[in-house]
Amino acid sequence: MKQLLLVAHGSRSSVSNDEIIELTATLRGKGDFFFDRIDCAFLEFAEPGVAESIDQAVSQGVQEILLLPYFLAAGVHVSRDLPAIAAAKRSEHAGVKIGISAHFGASSGIGNLLLTLAAAAS
Amino acid sequence: MKQLLLVAHGSRSSVSNDEIIELTATLRGKGDFFFDRIDCAFLEFAEPGVAESIDQAVSQGVQEILLLPYFLAAGVHVSRDLPAIAAAKRSEHAGVKIGISAHFGASSGIGNLLLTLAAAAS
Repeated sequence: MKQLLLVAHGSRSSVSNDEIIELTATLRGKGDFFFDRIDCAFLEFAEPGVAESIDQAVSQGVQEILLLPYFLAAGVHVSRDLPAIAAAKRSEHAGVKIGISAHFGASSGIGNLLLTLAAAAS
Repeated sequence: MKQLLLVAHGSRSSVSNDEIIELTATLRGKGDFFFDRIDCAFLEFAEPGVAESIDQAVSQGVQEILLLPYFLAAGVHVSRDLPAIAAAKRSEHAGVKIGISAHFGASSGIGNLLLTLAAAAS
């Protein structure tokens, strides 16, 4: 079983966290060809946490996890914190493949989305 | 003259700020049909600031400015700080139209970009 885990920063505002949960639901509708499960987790301020989500997925039979950092910039959360969690969980769950994709801000399609947004507001 | 001003949070890391500057250059290449000028500004930690950018654009003949909040979540920067700056600048520069688009995280195409990123890493 293969899981895509969207990792967001997490906010003190439940509205922001709900946006991530809704986005994850959208992903489920589109990505079920590639992933058996699509979930989200948060680094701070919201539940579930990333480590906890990985543990739960593994206990439910997931053998491959791709962490996708939902961050615009590759700051310390992306460059240090998330790789550290992944490394710890790889040691803990031998045989489970845990990868990390590029962070969202590295997507080449962002410019087009921004112009679409700008055109809608003009 | 019409300007698109991409507004990012700004970071203590110059690498993150440089990502925004590069993204703005990409936008310039794609959006020059809609906007006479495309620039970026930062709310914190980096220059130029938003108020300063607006003042400069107006002094250079820009009559219409669209602020595009480059934020994933509609937190206080998007819902309070940026509208407050826009309101102050509207009072200061009578006759200049200053609008704010939806924040980037509200784009409907984000799910597809995330799956593209995930597929590339799989």
